[in-house]
Amino acid sequence: MNDDALLAEQMAYYKAGAAEYDRPYAEYEDLQKLLAAVGDLPIAGHVLELACGTGQWTPRLAARAQSVTAVDASPEVLALARARTGSPTVRFLEADLFEWRPPRRYDTVFFAFWLSHVPPARLPGFWNTVAAALAPGGKAIFIDDGPAAAAHEEVLADQPTPTALRRLDDGSEYRIVKVFHDARTLTDDLTAQGWSVRIRTMAGNFIGVAEPPTTAA
Amino acid sequence: MNDDALLAEQMAYYKAGAAEYDRPYAEYEDLQKLLAAVGDLPIAGHVLELACGTGQWTPRLAARAQSVTAVDASPEVLALARARTGSPTVRFLEADLFEWRPPRRYDTVFFAFWLSHVPPARLPGFWNTVAAALAPGGKAIFIDDGPAAAAHEEVLADQPTPTALRRLDDGSEYRIVKVFHDARTLTDDLTAQGWSVRIRTMAGNFIGVAEPPTTAA
Repeated sequence: MNDDALLAEQMAYYKAGAAEYDRPYAEYEDLQKLLAAVGDLPIAGHVLELACGTGQWTPRLAARAQSVTAVDASPEVLALARARTGSPTVRFLEADLFEWRPPRRYDTVFFAFWLSHVPPARLPGFWNTVAAALAPGGKAIFIDDGPAAAAHEEVLADQPTPTALRRLDDGSEYRIVKVFHDARTLTDDLTAQGWSVRIRTMAGNFIGVAEPPTTAA
Repeated sequence: MNDDALLAEQMAYYKAGAAEYDRPYAEYEDLQKLLAAVGDLPIAGHVLELACGTGQWTPRLAARAQSVTAVDASPEVLALARARTGSPTVRFLEADLFEWRPPRRYDTVFFAFWLSHVPPARLPGFWNTVAAALAPGGKAIFIDDGPAAAAHEEVLADQPTPTALRRLDDGSEYRIVKVFHDARTLTDDLTAQGWSVRIRTMAGNFIGVAEPPTTAA
């Protein structure tokens, strides 16, 4: 390929990708706001972090907590989270969140960008697990994508469970569960299950604070 | 696809993509450091920004400049840059940088993540254009990826011009020019062409400040 052709294709790339390659900056700004918002959330005592991923949130939780137990299914992401989190009060656990049952109760159960990956059929069970993991007076705190984020995903149509296609740099494709919860519907659903819940939106995301039904806690 | 299979694939995605999906956060941190470094650079007077893209840098230049002329080949990115930059001292121009010749001279010529997209065969001409665009005492200031960034690109082997493959969310693929300049080699090359140049590295990036040969300015 000669340079003229290559430069024409380069120009086509930037033309076609304009909105897309600007998005990371916008997302970065949104993420920074969410990360900053952690400082205002009622994170306290012994904290359980579900689906901690690469530990983006873990150090911020650790700064507010007596201890953090951070759980994820992937040893690869846990290795990155461990490298990022240099706190003696954080313990990492490898476990499949759909199988794992917490061995104790916590004052805070935190999960960021995990709720959207829980299949709807498993949501009631998931919330029961969260409720069972909370000590009396404890709170669930969750952050996730709202409906606007769907515009940035390859949503697969006609799937029994809401599914998106994700692609890695090597071109490999993976289907993942991706439910874009609406704050109002989520509030209503949780309220109907007996939770006390407040959800606020921030850019295309939402932040929820919820207390389980007293019978469950 | 049932939920069990979907969840298995979701887990495989996060397992396979661990390093990759952590990278944006690291890149954001690097980018923030670079953006912050703009405050320490000798940006002054009338500024020409080449390949302004979506205007990530433009407002920061405008804050330090008497005026900014920001040029890019893509009307799509210029629209985003205009939306982001609310300054009366900034003027946007649509032009192919390989054809365009500045109609006047500037105190600063700034280009971030553009040098790596210039084919090596066109580099001498590019630097001459930059030199010709600088007023006496003016400086070129440039920021780009160093060799470490190659690890995050799909570099295509055996191309006459260093080429990388970029993929948009819709799966479409584009070949672009991508030269990962080494700070020392770049310094030597520019010095050999009569420039006075200082290049410092920051994470995987470099920041250069250069004055053209006095004969050219």
